Order: sequence, then structure tokens, then C-alpha cells
Amino acid sequence: MVNVKLIEKNRNYRGFQFVYSHYSTSNKCEMKFSIYIPDSKKKMPALYFLSGLTCTEQNFIQKSGMQKYASKYEMIIVGPDTSPRGKEVKDDTDHLLGKGAGFYLNAVTKMWKKNYNMYDYISKELPKIINENFNVLRNKQSIMGHSMGGMGALVCGVQNQKIFKSISALSPICSPSKSNLTQKAFKEYLGSQQKFCKKYDPIELFKIKQTNYKLLIDLGDKDEFIDDLYLKDFVKICKKHNQKILLRIHKNHGHGYYFISTFIKDHILFHKKILSKK
Amino acid sequence: MVNVKLIEKNRNYRGFQFVYSHYSTSNKCEMKFSIYIPDSKKKMPALYFLSGLTCTEQNFIQKSGMQKYASKYEMIIVGPDTSPRGKEVKDDTDHLLGKGAGFYLNAVTKMWKKNYNMYDYISKELPKIINENFNVLRNKQSIMGHSMGGMGALVCGVQNQKIFKSISALSPICSPSKSNLTQKAFKEYLGSQQKFCKKYDPIELFKIKQTNYKLLIDLGDKDEFIDDLYLKDFVKICKKHNQKILLRIHKNHGHGYYFISTFIKDHILFHKKILSKK
Repeated sequence: MVNVKLIEKNRNYRGFQFVYSHYSTSNKCEMKFSIYIPDSKKKMPALYFLSGLTCTEQNFIQKSGMQKYASKYEMIIVGPDTSPRGKEVKDDTDHLLGKGAGFYLNAVTKMWKKNYNMYDYISKELPKIINENFNVLRNKQSIMGHSMGGMGALVCGVQNQKIFKSISALSPICSPSKSNLTQKAFKEYLGSQQKFCKKYDPIELFKIKQTNYKLLIDLGDKDEFIDDLYLKDFVKICKKHNQKILLRIHKNHGHGYYFISTFIKDHILFHKKILSKK
Repeated sequence: MVNVKLIEKNRNYRGFQFVYSHYSTSNKCEMKFSIYIPDSKKKMPALYFLSGLTCTEQNFIQKSGMQKYASKYEMIIVGPDTSPRGKEVKDDTDHLLGKGAGFYLNAVTKMWKKNYNMYDYISKELPKIINENFNVLRNKQSIMGHSMGGMGALVCGVQNQKIFKSISALSPICSPSKSNLTQKAFKEYLGSQQKFCKKYDPIELFKIKQTNYKLLIDLGDKDEFIDDLYLKDFVKICKKHNQKILLRIHKNHGHGYYFISTFIKDHILFHKKILSKK
């Protein structure tokens, strides 16, 4: 059992918002994650939320208002950090690379591979820690995310369907090979070999793997980064490969937490419904 | 009509969260305020929220989740900054004094009186700007606040009952002459004359002025600053002077935004109910 250390505990709605830290064997550094636990003695499903660029484990728990719905619908919500952390971890001055920009992949280049292994962290290490330390239903886990984290949810989710039973995303980046938000980091972390890039590209992945349930994707029509998401291309690929997908486009909404907070209830209910069936 | 400049506009729930700036004649500097406007063509009541120490106009709109209830109950919510701002405004390295710590009073000392006039700003200047520029019901305005802003709501509210028709507070500081959070600022802004201090002291004010409705006050029993609030002394004075007050103490809750977000719905409904009657 991995040793987790309590960092924060705050009452919020009918539950507690916790932050823990632990040593990550994937990333070779101390990392934090948030976990919201509704008041209940029953074991509950766990839903992971992957955050966007520049975020830590704090943004989602402070700004999304998800705790209201998590407590109402009795879902444990886990919010990992977006990259390795600590003085000894390599960083970059560009906010699109290094700390806060882990992109939920395993780096292969010499410069980055020691610490930047967020794919393994999200898909293997963290679910194990959550299962061992908290009162979760082991076979009832799902994943969602926003922007960079929406990409992470699609990538980690579709490749680990035994762990994550459903996937949803808000404003996900869908084409890391085309997006201005991702190109630099992918080149730095993965080098020039196409095979590595394809492993973390939602459009490439959904050509070869699909889910047996409908994906839920939300987008604001005033999203400041809409041209860097390539969401239409992703929807085309899904339809071509018989991946059911519900894309909802919301009038006047942007990219940030005002958008997330408006629709987070729908995502929690979406996963709750699927997890209640399986 | 005062010229207000749009700084931010974000869709959130069924309305828009705006931030505006304008030149403040009270504080002799450019100031920002937030205003959430639900989708409605009707004129709506306006509810002011005064924030706590170190906050700007941003904390409340990013962290409280109030927009969900404001849109549902059709209330315009106004969130002023907590002090004057700008390079030319005097500041202090202590977070309990200067920028972020205006304490909703009018300074009288030579060092601070030019810019630190938050009492006039909240009680006179800002309501006038809101009335002239937005679709509010002029006689349907109320005030609430948190911590330093809870004190501000009690002080500005009870002395301006023609403007603010109801008052509520979360974890308000009630005795500035005793609290460690306020003593330094009160001495700096108001000097040593007791008459000035009494004007901004909820306990002193409610000895001589009361409201004809019940005040709503919320407190967490794990509030980190509970010993600096003097809320029990305030309740005693209210009872002695026939001021109706509902003090709710919430188990396990602390002082911050996790506490505010849990109970903000109740405050919005409290004011809505009073404003619907009058």
C-alpha cells in the first residue's frame, strides 16, 4: 500500500475535499492529487478529471463547483496534477512545455523521460493508489478532462477500457500533430518518431479502437482555442469508425472554468448512468 | 452617467459574468467590479457581495459558484474590489493593511485618506453606477459579505437601509477593536479617535441601529479565524437590542470558499425572499 500524506481537508457541500501527496514511481517525484469524498459509508464509483495546460490539482476543485453534484450523486472525484513537480524536475519557460504541461504521455527523449510519464501515472499508478487507499468501487471508474486533459481522457480512456468504463471531455485537443498547443511538447517529449506520437493522438487512436458506449463531448462556440482543438476532425473519424459520440456545442460559451462549471453536472451524471449499468 | 469599461465577459450558466472598470471619485483611482447578469429582459434585484482580505473582484466570481443560483433566481450579483488599486495608491507589505484590505471604511489619516474611501464607494458611488448602467430594480438592492466583507456588509447595510433592503454575512469580523485581523488597519486608517472606529464597528453600530428583518449569519465551527470574529459578542448585542438574527453554525466547515460555495445559495434565496416582499 502506497503511503499517501494528507495536505488539505475542507468541508464542501455534503462531503470533504481532500488533497494528498505521495511519491510517484512513474514520475520519480512527489506529486499531489485531489479527491472529493461524499458523506457515505458505501463504496462509491470514482471519476477522474484531467485538467488543462498550466493547471495544478487546485484549479478544478476551486473553480468547477463539481462538489455539489459529486455529493448529490455519490461519486468520488479524483483530480491529478498535470505534470511532475519539484525542484529537481526539468522545466521550460514556455507554458506549453514542462511543468503544468505533461500532456498525459510517457516521454521517450533523454531530456524528459525520467520524470514525464503522466500516461503511466494516470492509467496505472494513480488508480492503484486510489483503489488501495479509498472507499471506491474498484470496477466502477471513469475518466473525463478539459482541453489538454480532454485529450488525456480520450487517450488514457480508450486504451484502458478495463480501468475506465466511460469517457467524456470538455473542449478536448484532438489532434496533437496539428494543434499549436501541442506540437512543441510532443516534439520535445517524443522526438520525431511518428509511432510514439500516434499513441497519444485521439484521432489516430479512435481509428483503431472504439468504445461500446457514446462519448460525451462539450464545446463552446466562442472557445478561444477552437481552431487548435480539431474537434470536427475527431467527430468525423468517430462516425467513420462507428464510435458513437454526442457533441454538444454551447452558444456563447468560451474555453475556461465558466464553461466547465456550467456543464460539469451533465458529465458527472453521464458517467454515473453508465457506471450504474455495468 | 459614469463611463464603465468592459474588461471581461464570460458565459456562465444562464447568464453572463462581466467585469468592468471605471474611475472612482471616492477612491481617486481606476477600480474594477464584477457583475453577473442572468438572461432576462426584466429588471432584476441587485445583490452586493463584499469580499474578504486579500481578495480582488475575481475570487468570488471564480470560486463561489453563485452564478448557478443567481441565474435560477434572477438576481444580479455585484462584486466590488476590496480596496483602491493602481501604482499611485499607497500600499503596505502587510496583507492586513493597504491594497486588498480596504475594510470598507473612509480613512481619515493623512497617509491614507486620499484613496481609501471604500465606505463611500460601496454605500454611494457604486450603487449609483449600477443603477445608471444596468437593468436593475432601483429599490431592490441588498448586501452580503464574507469575513472582512461580512463586517462591511453589516456596517454599510445597517447605516444605509434606504439603499440595502437586507443584510447577510458569512464568517463576519464583528469587533474591529478586538480582532487581530483589523486592529492595525483601523489604527492606520482612522487614527486613535474612538468616534471614527465606532462608525465601522458592527457591535457598536447595532447598539444604536437595527433592522426590521432577521439577519442571516453563517459560520463554520472549524473556522480558522473563529477567535478573531467575535461573533458571539455580536449575537449578544443583537439580542439585547431586539435585532432579530439567525446564526447558523455548520459542523466541520472552515473559513474559505469551500464554506462560501456550500451556503451561497441560501444567502441568495434569503435576499430574494425579502426583496420580493418589499
